Amino acid sequence: MSENDYQEMYDLALDLAKQAGQMIKDAFDKEKLVDTKLSAADLVTETDQAVEKLVKILIKAKFPNHKFIGEESTSETGEKCEFTNDPTWIIDPVDGTTNFVHSIPEVSFSLGVTVNKIPVIGVVYIPMKEELFTARQGQGAFLNGRKLSANGTKDLSKSVVIMEGGSSRDPGIVDAKIKNIHSMVTNSHGVRAYGSAALNLSYIAAGRGDAYVEYGIHVWDFIAGALIAREAGAVVTDPTGSELDYMHRRVLCACTAELGKQISSLLVHLDMGWD
Amino acid sequence: MSENDYQEMYDLALDLAKQAGQMIKDAFDKEKLVDTKLSAADLVTETDQAVEKLVKILIKAKFPNHKFIGEESTSETGEKCEFTNDPTWIIDPVDGTTNFVHSIPEVSFSLGVTVNKIPVIGVVYIPMKEELFTARQGQGAFLNGRKLSANGTKDLSKSVVIMEGGSSRDPGIVDAKIKNIHSMVTNSHGVRAYGSAALNLSYIAAGRGDAYVEYGIHVWDFIAGALIAREAGAVVTDPTGSELDYMHRRVLCACTAELGKQISSLLVHLDMGWD
Repeated sequence: MSENDYQEMYDLALDLAKQAGQMIKDAFDKEKLVDTKLSAADLVTETDQAVEKLVKILIKAKFPNHKFIGEESTSETGEKCEFTNDPTWIIDPVDGTTNFVHSIPEVSFSLGVTVNKIPVIGVVYIPMKEELFTARQGQGAFLNGRKLSANGTKDLSKSVVIMEGGSSRDPGIVDAKIKNIHSMVTNSHGVRAYGSAALNLSYIAAGRGDAYVEYGIHVWDFIAGALIAREAGAVVTDPTGSELDYMHRRVLCACTAELGKQISSLLVHLDMGWD
Repeated sequence: MSENDYQEMYDLALDLAKQAGQMIKDAFDKEKLVDTKLSAADLVTETDQAVEKLVKILIKAKFPNHKFIGEESTSETGEKCEFTNDPTWIIDPVDGTTNFVHSIPEVSFSLGVTVNKIPVIGVVYIPMKEELFTARQGQGAFLNGRKLSANGTKDLSKSVVIMEGGSSRDPGIVDAKIKNIHSMVTNSHGVRAYGSAALNLSYIAAGRGDAYVEYGIHVWDFIAGALIAREAGAVVTDPTGSELDYMHRRVLCACTAELGKQISSLLVHLDMGWD
Protein backbone atom coordinates (compact mmCIF):
# COMPACT_ATOMS: atom_id res chain seq x y z
CA MET A 1 0.00 0.00 0.00
CA SER A 2 1.24 3.46 -0.86
CA GLU A 3 1.46 6.51 1.40
CA ASN A 4 -1.42 7.86 -0.65
CA ASP A 5 -3.55 4.85 0.28
CA TYR A 6 -2.79 5.37 3.97
CA GLN A 7 -3.59 9.06 3.69
CA GLU A 8 -6.97 8.26 2.11
CA MET A 9 -7.72 5.79 4.89
CA TYR A 10 -6.71 8.34 7.52
CA ASP A 11 -8.87 11.04 5.93
CA LEU A 12 -11.85 8.70 5.96
CA ALA A 13 -11.14 7.75 9.60
CA LEU A 14 -11.27 11.42 10.61
CA ASP A 15 -14.44 11.96 8.63
CA LEU A 16 -16.08 8.93 10.28
CA ALA A 17 -15.11 10.19 13.73
CA LYS A 18 -16.70 13.54 12.95
CA GLN A 19 -19.94 11.96 11.75
CA ALA A 20 -20.09 9.47 14.63
CA GLY A 21 -19.35 12.27 17.09
CA GLN A 22 -22.23 14.33 15.74
CA MET A 23 -24.62 11.39 16.15
CA ILE A 24 -23.43 10.88 19.74
CA LYS A 25 -23.85 14.60 20.50
CA ASP A 26 -27.34 14.69 18.98
CA ALA A 27 -28.47 11.74 21.13
CA PHE A 28 -26.54 12.58 24.31
CA ASP A 29 -29.16 14.46 26.30
CA LYS A 30 -32.16 12.55 24.94
CA GLU A 31 -33.93 9.58 26.51
CA LYS A 32 -32.20 6.40 25.29
CA LEU A 33 -33.70 3.05 24.38
CA VAL A 34 -31.45 0.70 26.32
CA ASP A 35 -31.05 -3.03 25.92
CA THR A 36 -28.73 -5.39 27.79
CA LYS A 37 -26.27 -7.93 26.36
CA LEU A 38 -24.28 -10.35 28.53
CA SER A 39 -25.16 -8.90 31.96
CA ALA A 40 -27.50 -6.33 33.50
CA ALA A 41 -24.59 -3.88 33.31
CA ASP A 42 -23.64 -4.66 29.68
CA LEU A 43 -25.67 -2.07 27.80
CA VAL A 44 -26.41 -1.24 24.17
CA THR A 45 -28.46 1.61 22.67
CA GLU A 46 -29.93 2.54 19.30
CA THR A 47 -27.05 5.00 18.89
CA ASP A 48 -24.39 2.27 19.22
CA GLN A 49 -26.17 0.37 16.46
CA ALA A 50 -26.91 3.38 14.22
CA VAL A 51 -23.33 4.70 14.39
CA GLU A 52 -21.85 1.30 13.59
CA LYS A 53 -24.24 0.77 10.68
CA LEU A 54 -23.40 4.14 9.12
CA VAL A 55 -19.66 3.76 9.60
CA LYS A 56 -19.72 0.27 8.10
CA ILE A 57 -21.60 1.50 5.01
CA LEU A 58 -19.21 4.42 4.47
CA ILE A 59 -16.14 2.19 4.76
CA LYS A 60 -17.59 -0.38 2.35
CA ALA A 61 -18.42 2.39 -0.13
CA LYS A 62 -14.86 3.73 -0.14
CA PHE A 63 -12.88 0.51 0.41
CA PRO A 64 -15.08 -2.40 -0.70
CA ASN A 65 -12.32 -4.98 -0.16
CA HIS A 66 -11.40 -3.95 3.35
CA LYS A 67 -12.54 -6.03 6.30
CA PHE A 68 -14.66 -4.76 9.18
CA ILE A 69 -14.87 -5.73 12.86
CA GLY A 70 -17.42 -3.85 14.92
CA GLU A 71 -18.71 -4.27 18.45
CA GLU A 72 -22.36 -4.43 17.54
CA SER A 73 -22.01 -6.57 14.38
CA THR A 74 -19.94 -9.06 16.40
CA SER A 75 -22.41 -9.07 19.32
CA GLU A 76 -25.28 -9.77 16.95
CA THR A 77 -23.70 -12.81 15.31
CA GLY A 78 -21.97 -13.99 18.50
CA GLU A 79 -19.16 -15.29 16.28
CA LYS A 80 -15.43 -15.03 16.86
CA CYS A 81 -13.74 -12.18 15.01
CA GLU A 82 -11.96 -13.07 11.78
CA PHE A 83 -8.73 -11.08 12.09
CA THR A 84 -6.67 -11.34 8.90
CA ASN A 85 -3.79 -9.62 7.10
CA ASP A 86 -6.29 -7.62 5.01
CA PRO A 87 -6.78 -3.97 5.82
CA THR A 88 -9.29 -4.14 8.67
CA TRP A 89 -11.36 -1.38 10.25
CA ILE A 90 -12.06 -2.11 13.90
CA ILE A 91 -14.79 0.02 15.46
CA ASP A 92 -16.41 0.69 18.76
CA PRO A 93 -19.21 3.07 17.83
CA VAL A 94 -19.82 4.18 21.44
CA ASP A 95 -17.12 3.20 23.91
CA GLY A 96 -18.44 3.86 27.39
CA THR A 97 -22.06 2.96 26.62
CA THR A 98 -22.94 3.04 30.34
CA ASN A 99 -21.68 6.64 30.48
CA PHE A 100 -23.66 7.44 27.34
CA VAL A 101 -26.86 5.96 28.81
CA HIS A 102 -26.31 8.04 31.96
CA SER A 103 -25.37 11.24 30.07
CA ILE A 104 -21.87 11.16 31.58
CA PRO A 105 -19.53 12.92 29.13
CA GLU A 106 -16.71 10.33 29.04
CA VAL A 107 -17.96 8.65 25.87
CA SER A 108 -15.77 7.93 22.86
CA PHE A 109 -15.86 6.76 19.28
CA SER A 110 -12.95 4.38 18.69
CA LEU A 111 -11.57 3.39 15.31
CA GLY A 112 -8.42 1.41 14.56
CA VAL A 113 -7.16 0.23 11.18
CA THR A 114 -4.79 -2.72 10.85
CA VAL A 115 -2.76 -3.86 7.85
CA ASN A 116 -1.04 -7.24 8.15
CA LYS A 117 -2.54 -7.32 11.67
CA ILE A 118 -0.50 -4.26 12.67
CA PRO A 119 -2.35 -1.10 13.75
CA VAL A 120 -1.54 1.72 11.34
CA ILE A 121 -4.26 4.24 12.25
CA GLY A 122 -5.90 5.00 15.60
CA VAL A 123 -8.61 7.58 16.18
CA VAL A 124 -10.43 8.13 19.50
CA TYR A 125 -12.91 10.97 19.53
CA ILE A 126 -14.64 12.22 22.70
CA PRO A 127 -17.35 14.42 21.20
CA MET A 128 -18.76 15.84 24.46
CA LYS A 129 -15.31 17.26 25.23
CA GLU A 130 -14.29 18.01 21.64
CA GLU A 131 -11.15 15.94 22.17
CA LEU A 132 -9.81 14.14 19.11
CA PHE A 133 -6.92 11.76 19.76
CA THR A 134 -5.14 10.56 16.63
CA ALA A 135 -2.15 8.43 15.71
CA ARG A 136 -0.54 6.92 12.65
CA GLN A 137 2.09 4.23 12.99
CA GLY A 138 5.53 5.81 13.43
CA GLN A 139 4.21 9.35 13.24
CA GLY A 140 3.36 10.20 16.85
CA ALA A 141 0.12 10.76 18.71
CA PHE A 142 -1.87 13.96 18.85
CA LEU A 143 -4.73 15.58 20.77
CA ASN A 144 -6.53 18.11 18.60
CA GLY A 145 -3.30 18.41 16.61
CA ARG A 146 -1.02 18.90 19.64
CA LYS A 147 1.72 16.26 19.92
CA LEU A 148 1.39 14.02 22.96
CA SER A 149 4.01 12.54 25.22
CA ALA A 150 3.26 10.02 27.98
CA ASN A 151 4.72 10.61 31.45
CA GLY A 152 8.14 9.33 32.54
CA THR A 153 6.98 7.87 35.89
CA LYS A 154 8.83 4.67 36.80
CA ASP A 155 7.65 4.15 40.36
CA LEU A 156 4.15 2.85 41.15
CA SER A 157 4.13 4.70 44.49
CA LYS A 158 4.21 7.98 42.50
CA SER A 159 1.64 6.90 39.90
CA VAL A 160 -2.04 7.35 39.17
CA VAL A 161 -3.55 4.15 37.76
CA ILE A 162 -6.78 3.90 35.76
CA MET A 163 -8.86 0.74 36.37
CA GLU A 164 -12.50 -0.24 35.92
CA GLY A 165 -15.03 -2.47 37.63
CA GLY A 166 -16.16 -3.51 34.14
CA SER A 167 -19.50 -4.88 33.03
CA SER A 168 -19.24 -8.54 34.05
CA ARG A 169 -21.19 -9.40 37.21
CA ASP A 170 -19.70 -12.90 37.51
CA PRO A 171 -18.63 -13.03 41.19
CA GLY A 172 -15.24 -14.65 40.46
CA ILE A 173 -14.40 -12.01 37.87
CA VAL A 174 -15.56 -9.12 40.07
CA ASP A 175 -13.55 -10.54 43.02
CA ALA A 176 -10.35 -10.68 40.98
CA LYS A 177 -10.85 -7.18 39.61
CA ILE A 178 -11.49 -5.79 43.09
CA LYS A 179 -8.34 -7.52 44.39
CA ASN A 180 -6.37 -5.74 41.68
CA ILE A 181 -7.98 -2.39 42.53
CA HIS A 182 -7.07 -3.04 46.18
CA SER A 183 -3.40 -3.61 45.25
CA MET A 184 -3.26 -0.49 43.15
CA VAL A 185 -5.00 1.77 45.72
CA THR A 186 -2.57 0.50 48.36
CA ASN A 187 0.56 1.00 46.29
CA SER A 188 -0.07 4.11 44.17
CA HIS A 189 -1.01 7.78 44.48
CA GLY A 190 -4.54 6.85 43.50
CA VAL A 191 -6.90 4.98 41.20
CA ARG A 192 -9.26 6.60 38.72
CA ALA A 193 -12.18 5.10 36.74
CA TYR A 194 -13.74 6.95 33.80
CA GLY A 195 -15.70 4.12 32.17
CA SER A 196 -14.24 4.09 28.64
CA ALA A 197 -11.24 1.96 27.64
CA ALA A 198 -10.45 4.00 24.53
CA LEU A 199 -10.51 7.20 26.59
CA ASN A 200 -8.38 5.61 29.33
CA LEU A 201 -5.62 4.68 26.87
CA SER A 202 -5.78 8.11 25.27
CA TYR A 203 -5.47 9.72 28.71
CA ILE A 204 -2.25 7.77 29.37
CA ALA A 205 -0.97 9.05 26.02
CA ALA A 206 -1.81 12.58 27.17
CA GLY A 207 -0.08 12.17 30.54
CA ARG A 208 -3.36 12.22 32.48
CA GLY A 209 -2.36 9.25 34.57
CA ASP A 210 0.55 6.81 34.41
CA ALA A 211 -0.98 3.40 33.74
CA TYR A 212 -4.17 1.62 32.81
CA VAL A 213 -4.98 -2.06 33.09
CA GLU A 214 -8.12 -3.93 32.17
CA TYR A 215 -9.32 -7.49 31.74
CA GLY A 216 -12.42 -8.41 29.74
CA ILE A 217 -12.39 -5.64 27.15
CA HIS A 218 -12.47 -6.32 23.43
CA VAL A 219 -10.23 -5.53 20.46
CA TRP A 220 -12.56 -2.67 19.41
CA ASP A 221 -12.24 -1.09 22.85
CA PHE A 222 -8.46 -0.87 22.86
CA ILE A 223 -6.83 -1.22 19.43
CA ALA A 224 -7.03 2.48 18.54
CA GLY A 225 -6.10 3.67 22.03
CA ALA A 226 -3.19 1.23 22.17
CA LEU A 227 -1.65 2.76 19.04
CA ILE A 228 -2.23 6.28 20.37
CA ALA A 229 -0.58 5.38 23.69
CA ARG A 230 2.40 3.69 22.00
CA GLU A 231 2.91 6.58 19.63
CA ALA A 232 3.02 8.86 22.68
CA GLY A 233 5.80 6.70 24.16
CA ALA A 234 3.80 4.43 26.47
CA VAL A 235 4.36 0.69 26.68
CA VAL A 236 1.35 -1.50 25.85
CA THR A 237 1.55 -5.21 26.61
CA ASP A 238 -0.44 -8.15 27.85
CA PRO A 239 -0.97 -7.67 31.62
CA THR A 240 1.51 -10.52 32.24
CA GLY A 241 4.15 -8.44 30.46
CA SER A 242 4.24 -10.60 27.35
CA GLU A 243 3.51 -9.28 23.87
CA LEU A 244 0.04 -7.76 23.44
CA ASP A 245 -2.39 -10.07 21.62
CA TYR A 246 -5.14 -7.87 20.18
CA MET A 247 -7.64 -10.71 20.34
CA HIS A 248 -6.89 -11.66 23.95
CA ARG A 249 -9.34 -9.35 25.72
CA ARG A 250 -6.86 -7.72 28.14
CA VAL A 251 -4.33 -4.94 28.15
CA LEU A 252 -1.75 -3.20 30.32
CA CYS A 253 -0.62 0.26 29.32
CA ALA A 254 2.09 2.01 31.32
CA CYS A 255 3.96 5.22 30.62
CA THR A 256 7.30 3.40 31.14
CA ALA A 257 8.44 -0.24 30.88
CA GLU A 258 9.63 -0.12 34.51
CA LEU A 259 6.20 0.90 35.76
CA GLY A 260 4.51 -1.73 33.60
CA LYS A 261 6.68 -4.47 35.12
CA GLN A 262 5.99 -3.31 38.66
CA ILE A 263 2.24 -3.28 38.08
CA SER A 264 2.23 -6.61 36.24
CA SER A 265 3.92 -8.33 39.18
CA LEU A 266 1.14 -7.22 41.58
CA LEU A 267 -1.89 -8.24 39.50
CA VAL A 268 -4.12 -11.29 39.53
CA HIS A 269 -4.12 -12.13 35.80
CA LEU A 270 -7.67 -12.90 34.73
CA ASP A 271 -8.18 -14.80 31.49
CA MET A 272 -11.44 -13.71 29.93
CA GLY A 273 -11.01 -15.42 26.57
CA TRP A 274 -10.46 -14.30 22.99
CA ASP A 275 -12.45 -12.26 20.49
CA MET B 1 -28.31 39.58 57.44
CA SER B 2 -29.98 41.26 54.50
CA GLU B 3 -30.37 40.00 50.94
CA ASN B 4 -27.84 42.66 50.02
CA ASP B 5 -25.29 41.14 52.44
CA TYR B 6 -25.81 37.71 50.88
CA GLN B 7 -25.45 39.17 47.40
CA GLU B 8 -22.16 40.82 48.36
CA MET B 9 -20.90 37.55 49.79
CA TYR B 10 -21.97 35.68 46.66
CA ASP B 11 -20.29 38.23 44.40
CA LEU B 12 -17.06 37.85 46.36
CA ALA B 13 -17.35 34.04 46.21
CA LEU B 14 -17.56 34.18 42.41
CA ASP B 15 -14.63 36.58 42.24
CA LEU B 16 -12.53 34.32 44.48
CA ALA B 17 -13.37 31.29 42.30
CA LYS B 18 -12.23 33.21 39.23
CA GLN B 19 -8.94 34.26 40.80
CA ALA B 20 -8.27 30.82 42.28
CA GLY B 21 -9.12 29.21 38.94
CA GLN B 22 -6.62 31.42 37.15
CA MET B 23 -3.87 30.44 39.61
CA ILE B 24 -4.68 26.77 39.11
CA LYS B 25 -4.64 27.19 35.32
CA ASP B 26 -1.32 29.06 35.39
CA ALA B 27 0.32 26.29 37.44
CA PHE B 28 -1.42 23.30 35.84
CA ASP B 29 1.13 22.25 33.23
CA LYS B 30 4.19 23.33 35.19
CA GLU B 31 6.42 21.17 37.38
CA LYS B 32 4.98 21.21 40.92
CA LEU B 33 6.80 21.26 44.25
CA VAL B 34 5.00 18.48 46.07
CA ASP B 35 5.00 17.72 49.78
CA THR B 36 3.13 14.99 51.65
CA LYS B 37 0.87 15.29 54.71
CA LEU B 38 -0.62 12.30 56.51
CA SER B 39 0.36 9.57 54.01
CA ALA B 40 2.50 9.16 50.89
CA ALA B 41 -0.70 9.71 48.89
CA ASP B 42 -1.84 12.82 50.81
CA LEU B 43 -0.28 15.61 48.75
CA VAL B 44 0.05 19.35 48.99
CA THR B 45 1.61 21.86 46.57
CA GLU B 46 2.67 25.49 46.61
CA THR B 47 -0.49 26.28 44.65
CA ASP B 48 -2.79 24.87 47.37
CA GLN B 49 -1.04 27.13 49.86
CA ALA B 50 -0.85 30.21 47.62
CA VAL B 51 -4.52 30.04 46.61
CA GLU B 52 -5.67 29.62 50.21
CA LYS B 53 -3.49 32.51 51.38
CA LEU B 54 -4.84 34.87 48.74
CA VAL B 55 -8.47 33.87 49.29
CA LYS B 56 -8.12 34.29 53.05
CA ILE B 57 -6.67 37.80 52.64
CA LEU B 58 -9.42 38.87 50.26
CA ILE B 59 -12.17 37.59 52.55
CA LYS B 60 -10.64 39.28 55.60
CA ALA B 61 -10.36 42.55 53.65
CA LYS B 62 -14.02 42.51 52.68
CA PHE B 63 -15.56 40.84 55.75
CA PRO B 64 -13.15 41.29 58.67
CA ASN B 65 -15.54 39.72 61.18
CA HIS B 66 -16.27 36.58 59.20
CA LYS B 67 -14.64 33.29 60.18
CA PHE B 68 -12.46 31.17 57.92
CA ILE B 69 -11.83 27.42 57.71
CA GLY B 70 -9.34 26.33 55.07
CA GLU B 71 -7.71 23.01 54.27
CA GLU B 72 -4.14 24.24 54.40
CA SER B 73 -4.51 26.58 57.41
CA THR B 74 -6.10 23.70 59.35
CA SER B 75 -3.42 21.20 58.26
CA GLU B 76 -0.69 23.58 59.41
CA THR B 77 -2.04 24.06 62.91
CA GLY B 78 -3.32 20.50 63.23
CA GLU B 79 -6.16 21.89 65.35
CA LYS B 80 -9.85 20.99 65.26
CA CYS B 81 -12.02 23.36 63.26
CA GLU B 82 -13.94 25.95 65.23
CA PHE B 83 -17.34 25.88 63.54
CA THR B 84 -19.62 28.59 64.94
CA ASN B 85 -22.82 30.45 64.08
CA ASP B 86 -20.77 33.32 62.61
CA PRO B 87 -20.65 33.69 58.85
CA THR B 88 -17.89 31.22 57.94
CA TRP B 89 -16.01 30.77 54.67
CA ILE B 90 -14.93 27.17 54.19
CA ILE B 91 -12.35 26.65 51.46
CA ASP B 92 -10.54 23.88 49.69
CA PRO B 93 -8.11 25.80 47.47
CA VAL B 94 -7.33 22.77 45.25
CA ASP B 95 -9.70 19.83 45.67
CA GLY B 96 -8.16 16.88 43.85
CA THR B 97 -4.54 17.77 44.64
CA THR B 98 -3.37 14.38 43.37
CA ASN B 99 -5.01 15.15 40.03
CA PHE B 100 -3.41 18.59 40.04
CA VAL B 101 0.04 17.12 40.73
CA HIS B 102 -0.48 14.68 37.85
CA SER B 103 -1.94 17.31 35.47
CA ILE B 104 -5.27 15.44 35.39
CA PRO B 105 -8.00 18.02 34.65
CA GLU B 106 -10.48 17.00 37.38
CA VAL B 107 -9.32 19.67 39.83
CA SER B 108 -11.67 22.06 41.61
CA PHE B 109 -11.73 25.12 43.82
CA SER B 110 -14.39 24.63 46.49
CA LEU B 111 -15.93 27.39 48.58
CA GLY B 112 -18.89 27.17 50.95
CA VAL B 113 -20.28 29.86 53.21
CA THR B 114 -22.32 29.03 56.30
CA VAL B 115 -24.44 31.31 58.48
CA ASN B 116 -25.72 29.84 61.75
CA LYS B 117 -23.92 26.66 60.63
CA ILE B 118 -26.22 26.37 57.60
CA PRO B 119 -24.66 26.48 54.11
CA VAL B 120 -26.00 29.50 52.22
CA ILE B 121 -23.53 29.69 49.32
CA GLY B 122 -21.70 26.94 47.44
CA VAL B 123 -19.28 27.44 44.58
CA VAL B 124 -17.27 24.69 42.90
CA TYR B 125 -15.13 25.76 39.97
CA ILE B 126 -13.29 23.33 37.68
CA PRO B 127 -11.00 25.72 35.83
CA MET B 128 -9.48 23.21 33.37
CA LYS B 129 -13.00 22.49 32.08
CA GLU B 130 -14.39 26.00 32.55
CA GLU B 131 -17.21 24.52 34.61
CA LEU B 132 -18.59 26.74 37.37
CA PHE B 133 -21.14 25.09 39.68
CA THR B 134 -23.02 27.51 41.92
CA ALA B 135 -25.82 27.40 44.47
CA ARG B 136 -27.48 29.68 46.98
CA GLN B 137 -29.74 28.26 49.67
CA GLY B 138 -33.29 27.90 48.32
CA GLN B 139 -32.42 29.27 44.90
CA GLY B 140 -31.39 26.21 42.92
CA ALA B 141 -28.07 24.97 41.54
CA PHE B 142 -26.45 26.01 38.29
CA LEU B 143 -23.65 24.99 35.93
CA ASN B 144 -22.33 28.01 34.04
CA GLY B 145 -25.75 29.61 34.64
CA ARG B 146 -27.80 26.61 33.44
CA LYS B 147 -30.20 25.25 36.10
CA LEU B 148 -29.34 21.74 37.26
CA SER B 149 -31.57 18.86 38.20
CA ALA B 150 -30.29 15.60 39.69
CA ASN B 151 -31.50 12.30 38.21
CA GLY B 152 -34.64 10.50 39.39
CA THR B 153 -33.05 7.04 39.67
CA LYS B 154 -34.43 5.01 42.57
CA ASP B 155 -32.90 1.62 41.90
CA LEU B 156 -29.22 0.90 42.58
CA SER B 157 -29.12 -1.72 39.81
CA LYS B 158 -29.76 1.11 37.30
CA SER B 159 -27.31 3.56 38.91
CA VAL B 160 -23.79 4.81 38.38
CA VAL B 161 -22.05 5.39 41.72
CA ILE B 162 -18.99 7.58 42.29
CA MET B 163 -16.51 6.32 44.92
CA GLU B 164 -12.84 6.89 45.68
CA GLY B 165 -9.91 4.91 47.06
CA GLY B 166 -8.98 8.04 49.01
CA SER B 167 -5.60 9.10 50.37
CA SER B 168 -5.36 7.02 53.55
CA ARG B 169 -3.08 4.00 53.24
CA ASP B 170 -4.10 2.50 56.61
CA PRO B 171 -4.83 -1.15 55.71
CA GLY B 172 -8.06 -1.31 57.74
CA ILE B 173 -9.42 1.82 56.09
CA VAL B 174 -8.41 0.71 52.59
CA ASP B 175 -9.98 -2.74 53.22
CA ALA B 176 -13.32 -1.22 54.24
CA LYS B 177 -13.34 1.16 51.29
CA ILE B 178 -12.56 -1.65 48.87
CA LYS B 179 -15.37 -3.78 50.37
CA ASN B 180 -17.75 -0.89 49.67
CA ILE B 181 -16.48 -0.54 46.10
CA HIS B 182 -16.99 -4.30 45.69
CA SER B 183 -20.65 -4.00 46.83
CA MET B 184 -21.32 -1.12 44.51
CA VAL B 185 -19.65 -2.68 41.44
CA THR B 186 -21.67 -5.86 42.05
CA ASN B 187 -25.02 -4.11 42.47
CA SER B 188 -24.92 -1.10 40.12
CA HIS B 189 -24.41 -0.20 36.47
CA GLY B 190 -20.90 0.85 37.34
CA VAL B 191 -18.53 2.76 39.60
CA ARG B 192 -16.57 5.86 38.62
CA ALA B 193 -13.69 7.64 40.39
CA TYR B 194 -12.62 11.15 39.40
CA GLY B 195 -10.49 12.10 42.40
CA SER B 196 -12.23 15.28 43.64
CA ALA B 197 -15.04 15.25 46.22
CA ALA B 198 -16.32 18.70 45.30
CA LEU B 199 -16.46 17.69 41.64
CA ASN B 200 -18.15 14.38 42.49
CA LEU B 201 -20.98 16.10 44.35
CA SER B 202 -21.36 18.66 41.57
CA TYR B 203 -21.56 15.83 39.02
CA ILE B 204 -24.47 14.26 40.94
CA ALA B 205 -26.16 17.67 40.85
CA ALA B 206 -25.65 17.71 37.09
CA GLY B 207 -27.05 14.19 36.59
CA ARG B 208 -23.62 12.75 35.66
CA GLY B 209 -24.09 9.76 37.94
CA ASP B 210 -26.69 8.87 40.56
CA ALA B 211 -24.84 8.69 43.87
CA TYR B 212 -21.55 9.42 45.57
CA VAL B 213 -20.31 8.16 48.91
CA GLU B 214 -17.06 8.85 50.71
CA TYR B 215 -15.49 8.35 54.13
CA GLY B 216 -12.50 10.34 55.34
CA ILE B 217 -13.06 13.61 53.51
CA HIS B 218 -13.20 16.96 55.28
CA VAL B 219 -15.77 19.74 55.59
CA TRP B 220 -13.90 21.86 53.00
CA ASP B 221 -14.09 19.01 50.49
CA PHE B 222 -17.87 18.63 50.61
CA ILE B 223 -19.73 21.58 52.11
CA ALA B 224 -20.04 23.54 48.85
CA GLY B 225 -20.81 20.46 46.74
CA ALA B 226 -23.40 19.27 49.28
CA LEU B 227 -25.36 22.51 48.89
CA ILE B 228 -25.08 22.35 45.10
CA ALA B 229 -26.32 18.74 45.09
CA ARG B 230 -29.21 19.50 47.45
CA GLU B 231 -30.25 22.56 45.48
CA ALA B 232 -30.37 20.31 42.39
CA GLY B 233 -32.75 17.95 44.22
CA ALA B 234 -30.31 15.33 45.50
CA VAL B 235 -30.40 13.98 49.04
CA VAL B 236 -27.25 14.46 51.12
CA THR B 237 -26.94 12.62 54.43
CA ASP B 238 -24.53 10.82 56.67
CA PRO B 239 -23.75 7.44 55.02
CA THR B 240 -25.82 5.73 57.75
CA GLY B 241 -28.83 7.72 56.55
CA SER B 242 -28.94 10.04 59.55
CA GLU B 243 -28.66 13.79 59.27
CA LEU B 244 -25.45 15.07 57.70
CA ASP B 245 -22.91 16.40 60.21
CA TYR B 246 -20.57 18.72 58.32
CA MET B 247 -17.75 18.04 60.77
CA HIS B 248 -18.08 14.24 60.63
CA ARG B 249 -15.75 13.52 57.70
CA ARG B 250 -18.19 11.42 55.65
CA VAL B 251 -21.03 11.92 53.21
CA LEU B 252 -23.60 10.07 51.11
CA CYS B 253 -25.20 11.91 48.22
CA ALA B 254 -27.93 10.21 46.20
CA CYS B 255 -30.20 11.61 43.52
CA THR B 256 -33.25 10.19 45.39
CA ALA B 257 -33.96 9.23 49.00
CA GLU B 258 -34.86 5.69 47.89
CA LEU B 259 -31.48 5.20 46.24
CA GLY B 260 -29.69 6.67 49.26
CA LYS B 261 -31.40 4.16 51.59
CA GLN B 262 -30.53 1.23 49.33
CA ILE B 263 -26.87 2.24 49.17
CA SER B 264 -26.65 3.00 52.89
CA SER B 265 -27.85 -0.49 53.78
CA LEU B 266 -25.03 -2.11 51.76
CA LEU B 267 -22.10 -0.09 53.09
CA VAL B 268 -19.53 -0.76 55.79
CA HIS B 269 -19.75 2.53 57.71
CA LEU B 270 -16.24 3.75 58.46
CA ASP B 271 -15.81 6.31 61.21
CA MET B 272 -12.83 8.50 60.39
CA GLY B 273 -13.35 11.14 63.06
CA TRP B 274 -14.33 14.79 63.13
CA ASP B 275 -12.81 17.97 61.78
